[in-house]
Amino acid sequence: MKFFINNPQQVVDEGIEGLLTDPNLTKLDNFPEVRVVLRKNIDKNKVAVISGGGSGHEPAHAGFVGEGMLTAAVCGDIFASPSVDAVLSAIVATTGEKGCLLIIKNYTGDRLNFGLAAEQARDMGYKVETVIVGDDIALGEDVEQRGLAGTLFVHKAAGYLAEEGKNLAQVTKMAKKVAEQTFSIGLSLEEGQKFQNPESSRLDQSEAELGLGIHGEPGVETISMDNAESLMQQAIQKLKEYLPSEDKEYALMLNNLGSVTPLEMNILLYAFQKSELAERVKLIVGPSQLMTSLNMNGFSISMLVIDEEIKKALTAKATPVSWFIREFGKISSVESPQLPETLPFEASSNSAKEKSLQKITKELISLEKELNAIDEKVGDGDAGSTFATGAKKLQELHDKLPFNNDAELLITIGRILARETGGSSGVLLSIMFTRAGNAYKEHQHLGKALNEGLQKMKEFGGAEEGQRTMIDALQPAFTVLAEDGTIEEAAKKAREGANKTKEITNTDFGRSSYLSEKSLKDIPDPGAEAVAKVFEVLTS
Amino acid sequence: MKFFINNPQQVVDEGIEGLLTDPNLTKLDNFPEVRVVLRKNIDKNKVAVISGGGSGHEPAHAGFVGEGMLTAAVCGDIFASPSVDAVLSAIVATTGEKGCLLIIKNYTGDRLNFGLAAEQARDMGYKVETVIVGDDIALGEDVEQRGLAGTLFVHKAAGYLAEEGKNLAQVTKMAKKVAEQTFSIGLSLEEGQKFQNPESSRLDQSEAELGLGIHGEPGVETISMDNAESLMQQAIQKLKEYLPSEDKEYALMLNNLGSVTPLEMNILLYAFQKSELAERVKLIVGPSQLMTSLNMNGFSISMLVIDEEIKKALTAKATPVSWFIREFGKISSVESPQLPETLPFEASSNSAKEKSLQKITKELISLEKELNAIDEKVGDGDAGSTFATGAKKLQELHDKLPFNNDAELLITIGRILARETGGSSGVLLSIMFTRAGNAYKEHQHLGKALNEGLQKMKEFGGAEEGQRTMIDALQPAFTVLAEDGTIEEAAKKAREGANKTKEITNTDFGRSSYLSEKSLKDIPDPGAEAVAKVFEVLTS
Repeated sequence: MKFFINNPQQVVDEGIEGLLTDPNLTKLDNFPEVRVVLRKNIDKNKVAVISGGGSGHEPAHAGFVGEGMLTAAVCGDIFASPSVDAVLSAIVATTGEKGCLLIIKNYTGDRLNFGLAAEQARDMGYKVETVIVGDDIALGEDVEQRGLAGTLFVHKAAGYLAEEGKNLAQVTKMAKKVAEQTFSIGLSLEEGQKFQNPESSRLDQSEAELGLGIHGEPGVETISMDNAESLMQQAIQKLKEYLPSEDKEYALMLNNLGSVTPLEMNILLYAFQKSELAERVKLIVGPSQLMTSLNMNGFSISMLVIDEEIKKALTAKATPVSWFIREFGKISSVESPQLPETLPFEASSNSAKEKSLQKITKELISLEKELNAIDEKVGDGDAGSTFATGAKKLQELHDKLPFNNDAELLITIGRILARETGGSSGVLLSIMFTRAGNAYKEHQHLGKALNEGLQKMKEFGGAEEGQRTMIDALQPAFTVLAEDGTIEEAAKKAREGANKTKEITNTDFGRSSYLSEKSLKDIPDPGAEAVAKVFEVLTS
Repeated sequence: MKFFINNPQQVVDEGIEGLLTDPNLTKLDNFPEVRVVLRKNIDKNKVAVISGGGSGHEPAHAGFVGEGMLTAAVCGDIFASPSVDAVLSAIVATTGEKGCLLIIKNYTGDRLNFGLAAEQARDMGYKVETVIVGDDIALGEDVEQRGLAGTLFVHKAAGYLAEEGKNLAQVTKMAKKVAEQTFSIGLSLEEGQKFQNPESSRLDQSEAELGLGIHGEPGVETISMDNAESLMQQAIQKLKEYLPSEDKEYALMLNNLGSVTPLEMNILLYAFQKSELAERVKLIVGPSQLMTSLNMNGFSISMLVIDEEIKKALTAKATPVSWFIREFGKISSVESPQLPETLPFEASSNSAKEKSLQKITKELISLEKELNAIDEKVGDGDAGSTFATGAKKLQELHDKLPFNNDAELLITIGRILARETGGSSGVLLSIMFTRAGNAYKEHQHLGKALNEGLQKMKEFGGAEEGQRTMIDALQPAFTVLAEDGTIEEAAKKAREGANKTKEITNTDFGRSSYLSEKSLKDIPDPGAEAVAKVFEVLTS
């Protein structure tokens, strides 16, 4: 395990410094002896809302300092409570007449150090209230529960009322109400790894943990590793035992405990959405990293019983970027558009064109083995088959083609190649023919139209002449046709172009770029060779 | 490596379903054959802004669908381009008279499939423009560059103008301008792991990769593993070669490529902040997961040259929760508050109280070994030393104590214990004495004050009577004192309480809870024993 750190002793300090590039945030200047992150513009006519605790839970808690949430956060070492003096400093630095509320996660160290700081601040004449959050339900009803990610609901609700100018009693009442109505549980596949001494997991490949803390405490249960849906179900079942039985509405928080990918978090959200609880969830915070446990490969869900008052507090504007909340709703879909038919145009006859196309398709089908053999030396060996497959499909659909309308014919060939020919070549040729058809509509000049199609193919394919592709034959030939030259001149140029590819032994495009000069020498590009052969058969 | 997935074939589908719990988003109903995520309320009088590409980059691209950014995202398989039909479906479903812009990351598959879909849509009569983004600078100037996270700048700027009702030419012009002025590079310590077949890393513990793509392509350089600051510097040095030499202003994007913790991302941001480029950065997006590469342990930085027009576009409101931008500024600090002196009160004499305190401290110092011995059997063996340390400090400061003012004396004892006595006991006793001092100020009743202090200690410590703590002696004694009983009665109760702890062999609190009944039987709690001894010496 490798980490992006400098000195393991300074991870907390340096992480905070990074956060402080936000010009709305600042720190107390006895940092890092005391690590207090606070808002730059504090209105001391409002209740200060302070939280904090051990670090290693980023973005919590300092990431939630800002308008509408925390006034300040006090940061301890990794998984260790901040000192009493640090908490007291935060109180004194931010608290005015209206007092302050300390939101404390229920861990002995936090309870004691925040508690004592509160007492000391009262002694100094500050009005201080405390709320202890124990939203974890893993340990059962009889035990003091730990504080988990659900604590952020308390920060947000209290922060909103404080911002609104409510008094300390009102802010405290709301914080206590939200704390009491929040229920959380965590589930993990691998523990978080301390930066300094990453350890091997106590869980093997067949195990997961349910009901764990955010400081590396083992889960209350080791459960069998299972798919995302089953694991989410197990967490939900555990949580359900503690939710009020009445038909309440909830806000959900889906917290990434560290290293779960956003894609997996969405899979977990989908698993939640399929559960019987989903119906009762109206708002969601996450899925995202909210209160992590270093790089733990796990998640937690928190459910908060909401009413209009709490809903308003949760959804009100707050500046911390790590906080976002949205409505949680049913998955919906809208009707897919009807895509064009592959063959939308009426079939029509034109014997000259029919004859030309038959010559071309016959030639490409007959060249399959020869071109594959060339491609085996310089590519992946399927160039001949790709051309033959497209040609066969064109033969098969011969009677349905609009031969007597050049634009429609070009567009139709483009469509058939796009849907029936695999690989890049099919798409590239399709781009060329589609664009040529559209261009032909504009000016009725086939040579110019094909050349414009070719330019579009180059634009999207990214290759130019001289890079060992079919462009080396197409470009000189189409240039002739665009300038009203004859098909014979075009064929001559195509052949010259194809032959030149035998000498191109140094290309930075496509698969040939991986090959040595020696292995490319004297071998033509199979695409360019096909083009030259097609022109030759047209003039034969 | 374990993952939160169900069927490896369905990770993309299920991830999208989770995202669709956002009621502002919906999908086309031929999902998952075609995976198009689009806004529920599309105003077809505005230019549609469409992007997409392979999956495995979440939240990109579907996570950026919403007001002010993308109208729709087309999602391919993991690291694979979506089909031509999927892109065409997105265009037809969202595009009105004003046309649409396709923002395409520069990969062959995306270029071809989006390009062909654009041609087909034009053929159907839609106005379609395309912008190809190649912000990666790793491969050098002569090569077609890949599209990386910087593409999100293009989404945001184009999305803003589209939302403002600008026409397709204006939206396209802005998108091209932003695409041309964005420069990105990635650095990784470990590759992302495919869910189905996680592989061991091609990098050993001493290596990192600079200049990598987001689909598992190796970096252009393997560099030595180093600290965060050095790694960031190397990325910056590489990037600097490509930045315009003039003195421009920039927006920075710091992208978590997958599994880097938020703490490490902030450490990387701090490293950036220390670089010579920081001065020129005015805005920052991130640090966060923006365009990931599964769970890659790496980051990318993108720098966009900004002017007033781009600044406005980037900072305008957008609903996708994964997008946030803030000012990037200098790290600041504010003056730390002056904390109270440990000994703020004037010393004063009171011979009775002085004598009592001397008795207590002498007793506790003499009990050190005895209490440690008891604690060795039921705890961590330092209870006696903790009490003795506090007592020695009180002795040492004897001449400076305000003996003639009970409230001040209690508060001062609390302060000394908090700063000079380690461990929970020191903080707990400090809470008790501090609260008792403050309570005494209110009603001048020492017994009641001590009892109130004890309640506060219980509140923060979380223990109750009967759990083998010093509370078992303190509570009965203080109850007597609070009810105006004598010190002798209190001492008797303290002794009874301490003795009772010998019979408490089953506790769920503290360290003793880990011990067997047999090992606790007949051993008193050392804290309770100390309290009883203190009362005894006071009445002797």
